[in-house]
Amino acid sequence: MTFPKNSSVSSTDNWLKNLQNRIEQALERALPSATLPPKHLHEAMRYAVLGKGKRVRPLLVYSTGATLGAAEIILDKPAIAVELIHAYSLVHDDLPSMDNDDLRRGHPTCHKVFGETTALLTGDALQSLAFQILSDPALGIPEKNQIRMLALLAEAAGSRGMAGGQAIDLESVGKYLNLPELEAMHKLKTGALIRASVLLGALCCPNASQSILENLDRFAQCIGLAFQIQDDVLDVESNTAILGKPQGSDLARDKPTYPSLLGLDQAKIRAKGLLEEAHQILQAIEAPTERLAWLANFIVARNY
Amino acid sequence: MTFPKNSSVSSTDNWLKNLQNRIEQALERALPSATLPPKHLHEAMRYAVLGKGKRVRPLLVYSTGATLGAAEIILDKPAIAVELIHAYSLVHDDLPSMDNDDLRRGHPTCHKVFGETTALLTGDALQSLAFQILSDPALGIPEKNQIRMLALLAEAAGSRGMAGGQAIDLESVGKYLNLPELEAMHKLKTGALIRASVLLGALCCPNASQSILENLDRFAQCIGLAFQIQDDVLDVESNTAILGKPQGSDLARDKPTYPSLLGLDQAKIRAKGLLEEAHQILQAIEAPTERLAWLANFIVARNY
Repeated sequence: MTFPKNSSVSSTDNWLKNLQNRIEQALERALPSATLPPKHLHEAMRYAVLGKGKRVRPLLVYSTGATLGAAEIILDKPAIAVELIHAYSLVHDDLPSMDNDDLRRGHPTCHKVFGETTALLTGDALQSLAFQILSDPALGIPEKNQIRMLALLAEAAGSRGMAGGQAIDLESVGKYLNLPELEAMHKLKTGALIRASVLLGALCCPNASQSILENLDRFAQCIGLAFQIQDDVLDVESNTAILGKPQGSDLARDKPTYPSLLGLDQAKIRAKGLLEEAHQILQAIEAPTERLAWLANFIVARNY
Repeated sequence: MTFPKNSSVSSTDNWLKNLQNRIEQALERALPSATLPPKHLHEAMRYAVLGKGKRVRPLLVYSTGATLGAAEIILDKPAIAVELIHAYSLVHDDLPSMDNDDLRRGHPTCHKVFGETTALLTGDALQSLAFQILSDPALGIPEKNQIRMLALLAEAAGSRGMAGGQAIDLESVGKYLNLPELEAMHKLKTGALIRASVLLGALCCPNASQSILENLDRFAQCIGLAFQIQDDVLDVESNTAILGKPQGSDLARDKPTYPSLLGLDQAKIRAKGLLEEAHQILQAIEAPTERLAWLANFIVARNY
């Protein structure tokens, strides 16, 4: 597992591990202490966020920012903000009125540990915290860009982004969706926040040109979709122990997925095609994109 | 019902009505059309927000801004943002896992009409929309102030603000709270967003001095608390038809309230004392504060 040959990074294992540690520490600092009241809520917020997850979205923020020359310290808060939005969505998705899941990332879900009421408020407060972190007056990014980043994250989270995708997903249970409909749904549900992660990283770099932003946007859309297809594939192929949630849960819920629509093999081919497209886009960007290239592979080739 | 004699506004009835119409129109524009997918979610968002409520928080934004000389057009988006946060909190508060209310402002609650899943996503998406509206790059407010406003709203909504107050409130059902504990809870649950409304209005005026901001902050804290005491009093005294929700519901849930702690008469005296304090603070502000004075009375003397 190494970066392509033009990489200046000697060990991707160390790079990934160091960055995941950095993300964990930044999240730890950003979350209110469990000794502060309301303690039960703060404990639940920390439980929902800390020590879990691959941190794909923050990794995208750091990798995009690093590609364009931003310092890691500038990227910490945007990276945390997007992860908090993701974490809030998982807490709410798992609630009994939504997916009613007992297990997430191999641990009991937030409402199983803290109760439904606290889990609801946990998600709500994590969303607020994301915007609080990103509106820090000492973010160290030109104010015009900071405001653009806030607008981008809010749109990506809302009814024309992640929450909207979730609404379409839940409405589509037991219904037939064709491929364009399925892709439109995932573009919102997963894609919007993946795209926001890449663009937040880029907007930390005041000198990023419009053409680089456009290429990164296209790159993000390719890997966002590939990420979701891989999720669907894993739901069929992987087992509960590796996945950290019950295998086959989409199928059990009669949710439309790429494998159910295209067949498993064609779904894998589609993911591979999107990954290749993502790499081609990166090659057109005049910057050291090896971290993003590696991350694209990591996202699509993962087995959990 | 007229402004004090130093007022330049001839009719408060018209002023209030015109402003409430303006707020309704601004909300109408801010909310996604119900013809846009996901239609069910957008319909629910519009249902939860439009045509209901006194709009106390937007009225505070406009009145504070007008006091310090801001144009109404500058105040529209901050006013809407704070109302969207309030509206989201009501949708979530009414859910079966929270207060399980069937009626809100005289109408069936969001989850009663659209189902629990959609109501959950409605609240989530309304919160995102609030931050999206307030991060509009064309807000017309100096960027430094805009970022401060975003930070202020996020903090007021989060675990050290409204959501945190709600968590303490729910934990306190059936428990004894003393007066300082009850006030600390309400300072978060209702007070934080009332305070944010006043300060958002003030921050729309780049020239507002630190001393004016501090006085407005104290004013907001007084009326925030008075507002909540009045809410508790109305829960005991008013009837369901006027209140738009079942009378006596706090008592039925064994929630600690001002009347249960102080007795009804002392609770009223406390509200009146806070209102007087609010008026004294306004008198120390060198600006035409008659709208705020009138609004303070409106908030505390209301019967619904």
